[in-house]
Amino acid sequence: MKFIVDQQVEDIEMPENLKLNTFLQEFHSDCHEPECGFGFYGFAFGQSPFSVPKIMQDALIQNSHKGEYAAVPGIPELRNAISKYNKHYFGMDVAPERIYVGPGTKELIFNLLEILHGTVILPTPAWLGYLPQIRFLQKNYHMLSTRANKKISPSDLRKLALRLQDRQKILILNNPNNPTGLLYDQLELEEIADVCREQNIVVISDEIYAQITFNFSKFVSMGKIYPEGTFVTNGLSKSHAAGGYRLGYVVFPQYAVELKSQFKKILATEYTAVSTPIQHAAVAGFEVSKEMDEYFEITRNIHHIMGEYTHEALLEIDGVKATKPDATFYLLADFNAFATDLQKAKISTSQKLSESLMVHPYHTAIVGGDSLVLERTDYSARIAYVDYDGGKVYENYKNQKPKTHSERTEFVVNNAPKTVGGIKMIAKFFDDIKHQ
Amino acid sequence: MKFIVDQQVEDIEMPENLKLNTFLQEFHSDCHEPECGFGFYGFAFGQSPFSVPKIMQDALIQNSHKGEYAAVPGIPELRNAISKYNKHYFGMDVAPERIYVGPGTKELIFNLLEILHGTVILPTPAWLGYLPQIRFLQKNYHMLSTRANKKISPSDLRKLALRLQDRQKILILNNPNNPTGLLYDQLELEEIADVCREQNIVVISDEIYAQITFNFSKFVSMGKIYPEGTFVTNGLSKSHAAGGYRLGYVVFPQYAVELKSQFKKILATEYTAVSTPIQHAAVAGFEVSKEMDEYFEITRNIHHIMGEYTHEALLEIDGVKATKPDATFYLLADFNAFATDLQKAKISTSQKLSESLMVHPYHTAIVGGDSLVLERTDYSARIAYVDYDGGKVYENYKNQKPKTHSERTEFVVNNAPKTVGGIKMIAKFFDDIKHQ
Repeated sequence: MKFIVDQQVEDIEMPENLKLNTFLQEFHSDCHEPECGFGFYGFAFGQSPFSVPKIMQDALIQNSHKGEYAAVPGIPELRNAISKYNKHYFGMDVAPERIYVGPGTKELIFNLLEILHGTVILPTPAWLGYLPQIRFLQKNYHMLSTRANKKISPSDLRKLALRLQDRQKILILNNPNNPTGLLYDQLELEEIADVCREQNIVVISDEIYAQITFNFSKFVSMGKIYPEGTFVTNGLSKSHAAGGYRLGYVVFPQYAVELKSQFKKILATEYTAVSTPIQHAAVAGFEVSKEMDEYFEITRNIHHIMGEYTHEALLEIDGVKATKPDATFYLLADFNAFATDLQKAKISTSQKLSESLMVHPYHTAIVGGDSLVLERTDYSARIAYVDYDGGKVYENYKNQKPKTHSERTEFVVNNAPKTVGGIKMIAKFFDDIKHQ
Repeated sequence: MKFIVDQQVEDIEMPENLKLNTFLQEFHSDCHEPECGFGFYGFAFGQSPFSVPKIMQDALIQNSHKGEYAAVPGIPELRNAISKYNKHYFGMDVAPERIYVGPGTKELIFNLLEILHGTVILPTPAWLGYLPQIRFLQKNYHMLSTRANKKISPSDLRKLALRLQDRQKILILNNPNNPTGLLYDQLELEEIADVCREQNIVVISDEIYAQITFNFSKFVSMGKIYPEGTFVTNGLSKSHAAGGYRLGYVVFPQYAVELKSQFKKILATEYTAVSTPIQHAAVAGFEVSKEMDEYFEITRNIHHIMGEYTHEALLEIDGVKATKPDATFYLLADFNAFATDLQKAKISTSQKLSESLMVHPYHTAIVGGDSLVLERTDYSARIAYVDYDGGKVYENYKNQKPKTHSERTEFVVNNAPKTVGGIKMIAKFFDDIKHQ
């Protein structure tokens, strides 16, 4: 039997990170060189390396018997906990009624895109998950290239919005940003908000990395700056190292009463509710506690140390540029200085660059520029600095906190040898390219 | 700020069961009659009353630390377990590669409707969840009314298919059936399959109640009869009393290799994967074991006893007709004999009938005909017979299995007083209607 699928399904591609993981597994099992025993230097997959906080695990255990369906927007205890979490960490006053829980932030963003009318404005570079959603939903969209500072330019945003005919536009703001690791400050957000008010742009502010802002007091939510028009999304995946639990939340704009009931209908139609035991585990993760506070601080500091090292080590490779991360566990590396040499070596696209770094003898996995919604010939790449044993490193950090720059370097060398080795491999690759 | 939502969002309604639950909660808190202390006779909400099997709870506890993302189609252990489960219970040879796991059967059906091109054929009466999905996805659809026996007529199906211009049609088959509780036998399925082959109809066979077929050996999956064109969906919600865990699966047709990769893309784009700890719990639920086998047998038998009683007690009300359930925990009651009296009492639609049964002094919740995709003036209703303490009743049944008809009646009287009382209330209601 031949099956016919709808056109929009054919039009989208597998999200690049998941495709890459499959590729790595298959490549690895096909490679019989002795070096393959070592595995890959993993700069590609963006997963927190730490353990799920103990109090969340305990809460899951305590609630494992709860087989009943949960309320569509989330159990009341969880919406309350998330409300208090937003107050405590982000200084936001959000009534629990404005909070909806879903099986991952990704699905909630998809659900928002399902209901919100209008053209999507996608600043680039961008997380690799947004574009397949937008294309699958057959929404109109426009890229908004960032300038040299890799941040949205308010005047470019205004110019683009003026060209769009839609009564409502949707800006996807990812702050802190994946892939750049950069943070928007209050002034930058205010300038963007001014344009949004003027041009009737609603904002989906994906703040999944908020808690991993290295200098945490610097983080400001767009939900505070533009409360009447911002949907803030966040969840357990990054800050709580529980991507596999699958739980996210969205904070609705103030006064969006009618919209909330529309949204609830969609959740009920598509998936009823999030797993009940998982919701109870999330209560423990979002309730303000000494345990969680310590966990956030330690993991945030380790990400900071790894980010600082990765940034500095990459800059030591002659010709390489890189964003200096304020947050997340990524940075954006720029290898365009090697463009001529790469083209000479028939590495004509960023996709080919990723593949060339993957093969023997480099075995280094990065996410290439076209997966970040950049031009195919833009030799930029997202570097994730999480390829280490999170459980052990957490304990090591707790036992002896590195204070000085040289202690921090030593900490990375001792605790994240694959990060150190992988960057050396990148250096070797470009050295080979230059001297081919 | 005024938000603009896309039209298809406005066009759908909240699934009736969830709307009803909200209504009940609100109604209850507004009612200050002494009788309200008693609560409602709950024939409306279709949730298994039993506890989640102990071995699933234990597996969830054992795997509570697993915070990493799972593979998109499901973890290999789970796909293997589901493969063996299908072999053992349903006599189906299904390679693990044909199985995809999702956060509930509901969402998997939604995902199938997202990718499959063609007009949807929806036999009625139908489970209240399909229509909002079809409408939200803006798919063309046609109802297919069943005849007196409440089953799909193959010749009616052929006639409808001949009228449709689509190269591909999609039939939603729900077997065993919610709301009727009826089971299609092998011959009936073969006749439907013949039409499907001839008319290029793919089948989504929602078999979520398969394990709750009272005379279990009678169950035959459409996946066996029409393996080249059937998507079989099933999950933990009903047979494993774990609706709140949110895990379902779909078995793809044979040879649908290309389609599977399209489907995987959609899952990756929308939700990545199902909660990892929940997947491990599901392994224990689908692996063939003495514990699960006993659990299925006991719960199936209790549902049978409750169904038999409910059916007989409803038939004792003069004028009431009802399907005799072969499976599930529902039956379809037909109150159309009271049409004249109901209209006289200004109860002009089945929705009004549900509301009239809900108010004082009846306090009885049913799902009315229009929520089952029947005509608004069809006074039929779905009766769920699950309003009892499943944990206690399970133990009572295990300690002393009722054998004879009178022992079974006694068992219901002792164990499900609200079922007994609720049916008396329905009798009183129609008695009052006749004598108004």
